[in-house]
Amino acid sequence: MRKVAVVGAGHTKFGKRNAGWRDLVQEAGKLVFDSVDNLEPKDIESFFIGAAQPERFAFLTHVAPLAAEMLGITPSKIIARTELACASGQAAIRYAYASIAAGLTDIALVLGVEKMFMPDMMEAQSNMTCVLDREWDGVNGLSAPPFFALCAQRHMIEYGTTREQMAMVRVKNQKFASKNPLAQFSGKEFRVDDVVRSKPVSPPLCLLDCSGITDGAAALILVEESLAKKFTDAPMYIIGSGQASIGNLINGLPGLANWDACAIAAKEAYRMAGITPDDIDIAETHDCFTISEIIEYEELGFCKKGEGGKFIEEGQSDIGGKVAINTRGGLLGMGHPLGATALSQAIELFWQFRGEVPDYRYVDGAEIGLTHNLSGSASVHSILIYRRG
Amino acid sequence: MRKVAVVGAGHTKFGKRNAGWRDLVQEAGKLVFDSVDNLEPKDIESFFIGAAQPERFAFLTHVAPLAAEMLGITPSKIIARTELACASGQAAIRYAYASIAAGLTDIALVLGVEKMFMPDMMEAQSNMTCVLDREWDGVNGLSAPPFFALCAQRHMIEYGTTREQMAMVRVKNQKFASKNPLAQFSGKEFRVDDVVRSKPVSPPLCLLDCSGITDGAAALILVEESLAKKFTDAPMYIIGSGQASIGNLINGLPGLANWDACAIAAKEAYRMAGITPDDIDIAETHDCFTISEIIEYEELGFCKKGEGGKFIEEGQSDIGGKVAINTRGGLLGMGHPLGATALSQAIELFWQFRGEVPDYRYVDGAEIGLTHNLSGSASVHSILIYRRG
Repeated sequence: MRKVAVVGAGHTKFGKRNAGWRDLVQEAGKLVFDSVDNLEPKDIESFFIGAAQPERFAFLTHVAPLAAEMLGITPSKIIARTELACASGQAAIRYAYASIAAGLTDIALVLGVEKMFMPDMMEAQSNMTCVLDREWDGVNGLSAPPFFALCAQRHMIEYGTTREQMAMVRVKNQKFASKNPLAQFSGKEFRVDDVVRSKPVSPPLCLLDCSGITDGAAALILVEESLAKKFTDAPMYIIGSGQASIGNLINGLPGLANWDACAIAAKEAYRMAGITPDDIDIAETHDCFTISEIIEYEELGFCKKGEGGKFIEEGQSDIGGKVAINTRGGLLGMGHPLGATALSQAIELFWQFRGEVPDYRYVDGAEIGLTHNLSGSASVHSILIYRRG
Repeated sequence: MRKVAVVGAGHTKFGKRNAGWRDLVQEAGKLVFDSVDNLEPKDIESFFIGAAQPERFAFLTHVAPLAAEMLGITPSKIIARTELACASGQAAIRYAYASIAAGLTDIALVLGVEKMFMPDMMEAQSNMTCVLDREWDGVNGLSAPPFFALCAQRHMIEYGTTREQMAMVRVKNQKFASKNPLAQFSGKEFRVDDVVRSKPVSPPLCLLDCSGITDGAAALILVEESLAKKFTDAPMYIIGSGQASIGNLINGLPGLANWDACAIAAKEAYRMAGITPDDIDIAETHDCFTISEIIEYEELGFCKKGEGGKFIEEGQSDIGGKVAINTRGGLLGMGHPLGATALSQAIELFWQFRGEVPDYRYVDGAEIGLTHNLSGSASVHSILIYRRG
């Protein structure tokens, strides 16, 4: 299997953007080409776009050639769009990775994008109920916040996790987001009290426990290993991959407080990379809700099952702790433009490894990083492991 | 690069089905598992689903884990959905192929599905305008039939192609579909006069020049070569792949009567397979409209540019001619459930190579086959080449 390197990255401002779907694509495109030496749009052989619901948020489909044209590229090897709800962007990176690893293409552009703000936000909300099983769960009120609230309730009952521990996840991630100009919710920090006393959404989760509706795009250039140094002195390599799904409908899930698919995916990714969870220096995990990050600490193997609450409370997921998690600000602080999130996570690792992030969030000496996305009712978990070049 | 084999196939009846999206998935799933020895749902490591617009046709998204659950599979390596409009199914096969070729997984289920009949068929029509550039072309009336009518007009002007030659494509494909119980339009044959005198849609194209709105699903099992014989005595191998996109908006296309992206994709697929167009015994090409098949003869290299009309008129694309094309009945006769079409095409080759089609359409001695899909404004062309095992 051939090795794959990341050599360029472009990241738009996330937030409520006065920009259309096409604008976001072009903005990320310009940024990614500006980030790489010796690469022109005409050099892009293959194009992978991760986009969750342009069909409903923007009334657009067949978005791969649409975006390619907006970017001025003419792929002659592979072109496709991937959809995996909140992990659509990681699915695009994974398809590009598989294609380069196989030898089907050498140079690929991967772009993730979502335009989620709509004139009628009830429609946006309605679209989001499709991310779970709309016909069987959504119809009973199980959109994302109530579902993750059930997970939180179950985790509190089974493991004694506290309301405050969940709030601490937002406090930590907001601390990073507050100084990140690309974040939707930059410019302010929160205390535990702010989170706990924010507007109730679905008990125990309040507004500040939830990631936002967000517009944004981000892009990466992936190349076959031997080409990497042509484009940058500091590439990043993909060294592990894992993904699993073992149920979708809430009644088909193995549990609410335990996410077995996450553990299965993590095990495979660690096996492939030849490492253990202890080797991860920095991770971007899918904190769509505060409780998610706590359960992920456990399923990714950073702490024992049931000890995720203690892990955040002890500062183990902060810089200086066991593993620095969500230093860009997480989904909670950055916002969550579905198709773009995984790209944004990978870009944080890329910039960290290259020392291109500001001091306040720099993880000195980080060598190995992990990105994790869940999608739907935590029904699919998608993991990639990266190594500094 | 590892080699990839097709070892199983399941194909639902195509047409206006009294079945929902989930029903179609399950029906194809049962059929594909019934077609393979020694394979249980629990053995499926990876799952790739091609679906174009479940978001709008069925108000469903995140359909990969939804379908996985319906199929009783629990993928532990890779799971994703691909969208590429009318080529969504081929994109799924291609992702599976890349993943197995790379060594990321050994056993994959690929399923394509589309539920297109809706209570309000105006809504279905509206969805289909998104397949081209809805905001810039669709708004000016350029849905698929007018676009392909422009291609037909241009081809008539530049190369002297006749109305009757286009009709002959439907006559040929309908001859095959008429006896195919899986076809939407089985049970009847058409003469050139029937096509030419059918209801005008967009001149010169009439109703019988156009493929239908269709419900359907189809599925394949793909495995790494060394495993193939465990599952079947007669596998089929993927030996070539090509894909290209060089424009999307009508003003960005290189031409209407010449589809350069098709020629680029074909050249790459032939190069990879180490063959020329003369080596193709049987092909399933994307006859979304009669004119499409004529242009494809040319761009795929089966005849010279401009001689596609003559090619059909001389019977060169029929059984006994230069290359047997669309022996299952084509999109015109089978119907065109967007995500399922490419799977259906691959299944025709699989059954042909195994001698599992009825005599009326059997291509004796076929060794090498090609499947071709276009999507949107013929803006993306996707090609795979298969070899009998």
